[in-house]
Amino acid sequence: MPVDSRFYAPLGALTLGKLAELTGAHCEGDASLIVTGIAPAATARRGDLTFLEGDGKAAPALSAQLNAVVTNAANAKYVPSGVAHLISPVPRHAHGRAAFALFRPRHFDWTGEQRIDPSAQIHAGVQIGPGAVIGEGVAIGERTRIGPNSVIGPGVQIGRDCDIGSNVSIFCALLGDHVKLLAGARIGEAGFGVTGGTHGLEDAPHFGRVILQDHVTVGANTCVDRGVFDDTILGERTKLDNLCQIGHNVVLGRSVLIAAFGGISGSATIGDGVRMGGRVGVADHVTIGDNVSLAAGTGAIRDIGPGETWGGIPAKPIREWFREVAWLQKQANPKKSGN
Amino acid sequence: MPVDSRFYAPLGALTLGKLAELTGAHCEGDASLIVTGIAPAATARRGDLTFLEGDGKAAPALSAQLNAVVTNAANAKYVPSGVAHLISPVPRHAHGRAAFALFRPRHFDWTGEQRIDPSAQIHAGVQIGPGAVIGEGVAIGERTRIGPNSVIGPGVQIGRDCDIGSNVSIFCALLGDHVKLLAGARIGEAGFGVTGGTHGLEDAPHFGRVILQDHVTVGANTCVDRGVFDDTILGERTKLDNLCQIGHNVVLGRSVLIAAFGGISGSATIGDGVRMGGRVGVADHVTIGDNVSLAAGTGAIRDIGPGETWGGIPAKPIREWFREVAWLQKQANPKKSGN
Amino acid sequence: MPVDSRFYAPLGALTLGKLAELTGAHCEGDASLIVTGIAPAATARRGDLTFLEGDGKAAPALSAQLNAVVTNAANAKYVPSGVAHLISPVPRHAHGRAAFALFRPRHFDWTGEQRIDPSAQIHAGVQIGPGAVIGEGVAIGERTRIGPNSVIGPGVQIGRDCDIGSNVSIFCALLGDHVKLLAGARIGEAGFGVTGGTHGLEDAPHFGRVILQDHVTVGANTCVDRGVFDDTILGERTKLDNLCQIGHNVVLGRSVLIAAFGGISGSATIGDGVRMGGRVGVADHVTIGDNVSLAAGTGAIRDIGPGETWGGIPAKPIREWFREVAWLQKQANPKKSGN
Repeated sequence: MPVDSRFYAPLGALTLGKLAELTGAHCEGDASLIVTGIAPAATARRGDLTFLEGDGKAAPALSAQLNAVVTNAANAKYVPSGVAHLISPVPRHAHGRAAFALFRPRHFDWTGEQRIDPSAQIHAGVQIGPGAVIGEGVAIGERTRIGPNSVIGPGVQIGRDCDIGSNVSIFCALLGDHVKLLAGARIGEAGFGVTGGTHGLEDAPHFGRVILQDHVTVGANTCVDRGVFDDTILGERTKLDNLCQIGHNVVLGRSVLIAAFGGISGSATIGDGVRMGGRVGVADHVTIGDNVSLAAGTGAIRDIGPGETWGGIPAKPIREWFREVAWLQKQANPKKSGN
Repeated sequence: MPVDSRFYAPLGALTLGKLAELTGAHCEGDASLIVTGIAPAATARRGDLTFLEGDGKAAPALSAQLNAVVTNAANAKYVPSGVAHLISPVPRHAHGRAAFALFRPRHFDWTGEQRIDPSAQIHAGVQIGPGAVIGEGVAIGERTRIGPNSVIGPGVQIGRDCDIGSNVSIFCALLGDHVKLLAGARIGEAGFGVTGGTHGLEDAPHFGRVILQDHVTVGANTCVDRGVFDDTILGERTKLDNLCQIGHNVVLGRSVLIAAFGGISGSATIGDGVRMGGRVGVADHVTIGDNVSLAAGTGAIRDIGPGETWGGIPAKPIREWFREVAWLQKQANPKKSGN
Repeated sequence: MPVDSRFYAPLGALTLGKLAELTGAHCEGDASLIVTGIAPAATARRGDLTFLEGDGKAAPALSAQLNAVVTNAANAKYVPSGVAHLISPVPRHAHGRAAFALFRPRHFDWTGEQRIDPSAQIHAGVQIGPGAVIGEGVAIGERTRIGPNSVIGPGVQIGRDCDIGSNVSIFCALLGDHVKLLAGARIGEAGFGVTGGTHGLEDAPHFGRVILQDHVTVGANTCVDRGVFDDTILGERTKLDNLCQIGHNVVLGRSVLIAAFGGISGSATIGDGVRMGGRVGVADHVTIGDNVSLAAGTGAIRDIGPGETWGGIPAKPIREWFREVAWLQKQANPKKSGN
């Protein structure tokens, strides 16, 4: 998916040679190649710079359009013949530097006293509470309410009949209709992830978005991080309780219910109608099928098929978990259990 | 408990017939019956609309004054003879729609530039930080401080000598004296709960309040949800750490201590002097007796009598839990334990 | 460490006799002794009031410079001969009252409409978003950005190239260069802790600070409490995910990674390069060695040596934990395991 210019201002194309200079990488092939975007290797379009990292033991998925790469030595063999590329010991870090040379998050340039940017398209009848701040290029639909002291970042699009509570922040996000965000919800912050840089750990850059579909509700002080390149998506009528954490690139289906302290790690996929009790954790890249139920406190570290009910840490089918709990209690406390 | 008009503006009485029309329900009995309020079935007064839902296998508790009900077919048999009622396949959803036709949360109509509403009764000597926003009808007692960029919703009453930190939000709440709310605390948001509506999941409406008694302290980014119809109550000198979640209708006794990430689910009742380590969860409707201690990480899914010390998931008496932990370690790692 | 007057305004010296009067304590020895500061017993300098509490069974660590103490009867025997002291049944509570008579947190006196205090030293080129509030004596270095509706408390020092998100609050803290705070982060709130007062539980007062070294990143809605007397410290390039809790007096080393819902209890010490999965808890006063890895959900209740990988609740070496999990599953579900 191309970087969304509503949230990230393009700073102009650069040659691969110029990017080599900026990142300290070595250029192999056509240094005059024009780079206009950034992307992961699997979905890059022509002109997108992408990166390859890791030990090179497994062949990465590559887009057929790929024509600009930054790679470490171990992965150079996977660069298709004739594709110009940069060689760097820290390819993801170099890619991040290139990304910031090509795009600038619009919320990085937000200063001054103006509470409501004159470029914002705010439908007549929208209610904006005292102290709320609305950025450049925001659009807000009919009858939507924005609570006091909330912050709507540049380019954010909000549909009709939404209810944005107080002290909320929204960046790099598209909201459908009838979306509700309770006080203190944090939509569209950069996700958690580090890359090895030349001086130590660096935060992985995030150039993606958050999509909240119609009738989504997000609880108080809950966080939904934006994608790395792609989108973090909450499907229609999905409802999150307070103090939940939804990582970058997560896709939640429709009518998902997640109780307080639920934590969905990066790139996990949760099917339609999934229900989670309090304090459930799902590990990164895990897929949970439609209509799964997870008991409070479950730690799901591998995929779960549709319709299952699981519990425990690590998660297992609920009856197995119950059996373990009962068996352990009986073995360890025989007198008590004998009563 | 009647809906508190300081927080929810009455929109005028409606006939049961009119409510049938608004909710798509079928009216049985006197369609000209005047409805003035909403309530749960057990505590309704004359003129309150209440609802019955579920499979109808157990008889619901009904107030003697009950005279207006919306019910599904399965529960229609429990409606006392002569009581006018609405029949709906989604009674709770219909009740919610009726509630919003009868009352409008006052914070839904908060717009404009005025930071401190002129109707607010603010005692001389109160300190209000820059950017703080104070709604209609708020009252604030002597020597209380309101931190910068906090939001005090319409009708909120705050006592003397309170210390409200920065970026806090308070809605639908009554605070005693010497109450402390740390930065980012969220008091009085709607709780988590869904009803089946005609088009899918809908958020359950909340028309209750939060009561914080004298000397209560609420940690940073902690959330205390308001009641559905009744109150969420924190007793005198109860102290919550950061990042805790207190659900709707919870009652915490006096001098309760809850460490970080504590989560008390809806309608749980916690006795006086209860102490909880970090990351303790209490399931909904559970009762914890006075002076109970719960070890860090406890998951309490059933009632615990006064004075007990419990731990583990699911919770059990602490010595049983210790025995399980030790026994399992010994069995599974015999060499290690034999050292 | 002396109380930092950038955050806590000294109210002037008091005699020990005057403090006896204010706290209801009994003065033994020179009532005209001048008290100018507060401190814990182990690190007090001349003129600092300190306190001794507990059952008196273990001798407390005492600074050689100690010359003013409030103690309960059980600990009076440890007061060095000739040192003037106060006797109180609630020494920590009395000490807290004395602390507030000697110092006043500057953020207690923040009122009015002025969004950016004229005394703040803000480097040219700093970007301050709409609605952000900057207190007295703040300093902000070159190219730093402060997001909309954030609050920077009196005396806070922020280095160069920092990125402070929106709706953030910072109190009693010193930030290095390249520090990133995501939306809703809460830096420098008082920590959790109670003292027995004359009328019941009282919050323990906090007169310490938070130090965030260069390149620290703090996630959205994460809380880092300030020290009781000393500092809470996050070392260079340490990265915290969203919704973490760092207690008072915690010291995190360099390049520590803590995923979402991590909770580090008061006075714990975490070595360099430690990595924690989601929802890890570390108990108070525990020490975790350099380069330790803790699996998601670990509950570390005792010290862990450098380089170890641990998991489980209570934490144990990861292989022991895996063995327990596998053994229990096999024993309790023999048929399933036999497949």
